[in-house]
Amino acid sequence: MLVDGKPYRTIWKSPDADGLVQIIEQRKLPWAFEIEDLRSVAEVAVAIKDMHVRGAGCIGATAGYGMWLAAIEADGDGQKLRSLAADLVATRPTATNLSWAVERQLGMILDQSPTAWPEIALREAEAIADEDADWCRRIGEHGLPIIEEIAKGKPAGEPVNILTHCNAGWLAFVDHGSATAPIYAAHRAGILVHVWVDETRPRNQGARLTAWELKNEGVPHTVIADNVGGHLMQHGQVDMVITGTDRTTYTGDVANKIGTYLKALAAKDNGVPFYVALPSSTFDWETRDVVGEIPIEQRGGDEVVRMDGLLESGEVAEIQVVNVGSPAANYAFDVTPARLVTGLITERGVCEASEEGVGGLFPITKD
Amino acid sequence: MLVDGKPYRTIWKSPDADGLVQIIEQRKLPWAFEIEDLRSVAEVAVAIKDMHVRGAGCIGATAGYGMWLAAIEADGDGQKLRSLAADLVATRPTATNLSWAVERQLGMILDQSPTAWPEIALREAEAIADEDADWCRRIGEHGLPIIEEIAKGKPAGEPVNILTHCNAGWLAFVDHGSATAPIYAAHRAGILVHVWVDETRPRNQGARLTAWELKNEGVPHTVIADNVGGHLMQHGQVDMVITGTDRTTYTGDVANKIGTYLKALAAKDNGVPFYVALPSSTFDWETRDVVGEIPIEQRGGDEVVRMDGLLESGEVAEIQVVNVGSPAANYAFDVTPARLVTGLITERGVCEASEEGVGGLFPITKD
Repeated sequence: MLVDGKPYRTIWKSPDADGLVQIIEQRKLPWAFEIEDLRSVAEVAVAIKDMHVRGAGCIGATAGYGMWLAAIEADGDGQKLRSLAADLVATRPTATNLSWAVERQLGMILDQSPTAWPEIALREAEAIADEDADWCRRIGEHGLPIIEEIAKGKPAGEPVNILTHCNAGWLAFVDHGSATAPIYAAHRAGILVHVWVDETRPRNQGARLTAWELKNEGVPHTVIADNVGGHLMQHGQVDMVITGTDRTTYTGDVANKIGTYLKALAAKDNGVPFYVALPSSTFDWETRDVVGEIPIEQRGGDEVVRMDGLLESGEVAEIQVVNVGSPAANYAFDVTPARLVTGLITERGVCEASEEGVGGLFPITKD
Repeated sequence: MLVDGKPYRTIWKSPDADGLVQIIEQRKLPWAFEIEDLRSVAEVAVAIKDMHVRGAGCIGATAGYGMWLAAIEADGDGQKLRSLAADLVATRPTATNLSWAVERQLGMILDQSPTAWPEIALREAEAIADEDADWCRRIGEHGLPIIEEIAKGKPAGEPVNILTHCNAGWLAFVDHGSATAPIYAAHRAGILVHVWVDETRPRNQGARLTAWELKNEGVPHTVIADNVGGHLMQHGQVDMVITGTDRTTYTGDVANKIGTYLKALAAKDNGVPFYVALPSSTFDWETRDVVGEIPIEQRGGDEVVRMDGLLESGEVAEIQVVNVGSPAANYAFDVTPARLVTGLITERGVCEASEEGVGGLFPITKD
């Protein structure tokens, strides 16, 4: 998608040097647009763990390229390759795409001649990235008719108001995004859309990243505190909700950024359709009881206590925003039960958030 | 309540000078504890509008003292007194206690001899403040048995986990607070309590004020992002919710800080009792359809876009936390329908959030 008018992906192999991966350093956004070089598995692991990259698809693609660097570093040693793979998997326990990409690479590499590992791993990393971009584009195609249908019922000149939480935009994938893909598709199709952007505390991915994306693409939007969505829904100011997901079970339960569950409850209470957009790589085909079984990542309380942003001088500074001496807790995700989800928008189409719905679109993967 | 071990109220007549009101300048908290002098109605109006004071009871008491200064400034001119009264009422449209205190003062003053206005108004201002403190103390007495009952069902050594939103603490009143009164009463009674403090964006009254209060009183607490409460409830980590309210109809609908509705939905979905604590001055005896009829204050988007806090140097600084160029909207309150409220804790006891429940405790006021 566009950054200052120039198209980018979130991650790519540098054309200028071998064994060099480049990413958009997302922690610097929206205050600065910086490209970071990753030259080792250790650097890739830090980039994932410390959220230089984040979001299901982008983490998966980064792990894919990370395994390319692992294939180079392992130098034919299978045990070392597995150990480097484990380092990558350990960085973010809730992200399904991470282990999915690493396993996919291991499956491709390990049976092959060690001299071919780097080449095979690079080809597979590029394939993972291309697939991610292509699946997101298709999510946009499948979500577009839902927005078109709502637009038909609106008075002329009034936009379709879509609320989204966190950043499930192209920055969270390789391109297009999941939740944003239908929005970008509708905007390009000339449908009036307006996006309510939840700021998404504690890391403010909405206010920082989703707002930055939408601004760069010229999509009308308004940033709101996470507390506001229920009120807007009570007053008919939200036509639909679209969020992404970090992990969705084959039964339709949705693990996503903390706070998603609260918006889903409000949508249900006010008859607002609540959609979750995801490529099928984000499905968890094993877990049934997601509230009980999915490990929820607890991050440092510091992310709640301190915030960074721009001083009037234009410098980036960090400030304490919580009473000094008061502890903070930081749960990263919550689970929205399938009963609150209107539908799942996938690269194969839209389905009900249920075992039957998901199985209807993805019959083979289930077995 | 205690500040550094010394008891304070949020507002008082200065013992040192005539026509001088003093308040805790709450915008400076928790970074600094400062007393502000208010010497005119204009200064009182600014203090209310710009939230040097905030919270239902504290705004009411401030308006009460403001009317004392108005009685002095009017100098016997009834039209001027009404005009100054209107200035005060116009500062915060959603706050019932504001117009309630102003009307109460006008009713006391206008029929009396003009030379007696200042004395009468001062006596009434002190009465409003004393009543507020006394009612809050009683709210604590009536809420205490609810917490005691929950404590009986907990394993030894495990605290009663109470979630609260915004600041309905003593800083929001003259003393004790509404939502915090039962918590302080339980803590003093030796019951183990732990408070989940919603940070309460965009103005962070939870992270700043409630956390500061609880720390000064020695009550165990943890600050969380507003997004977290639903997840905690899904996992049995919240035993009850207590919030305050800016206006509650006699039918039990609760207008309170934006985001309260989302927590009430989550409480309902997880079988967690959701209580609202209020002195009866906060009841709206006229409005029936609160979602449709109550005007919801929209404040400047700047409060979402910028935040202030402490730099590492100890200086207070303001930073931009939203993508530059992205607009923000700032709705200050939402409405929690009575069907989501377990009970109302008032100075007369606990009642159902319904016309019957409220009427049972306050039969006369209704007519």
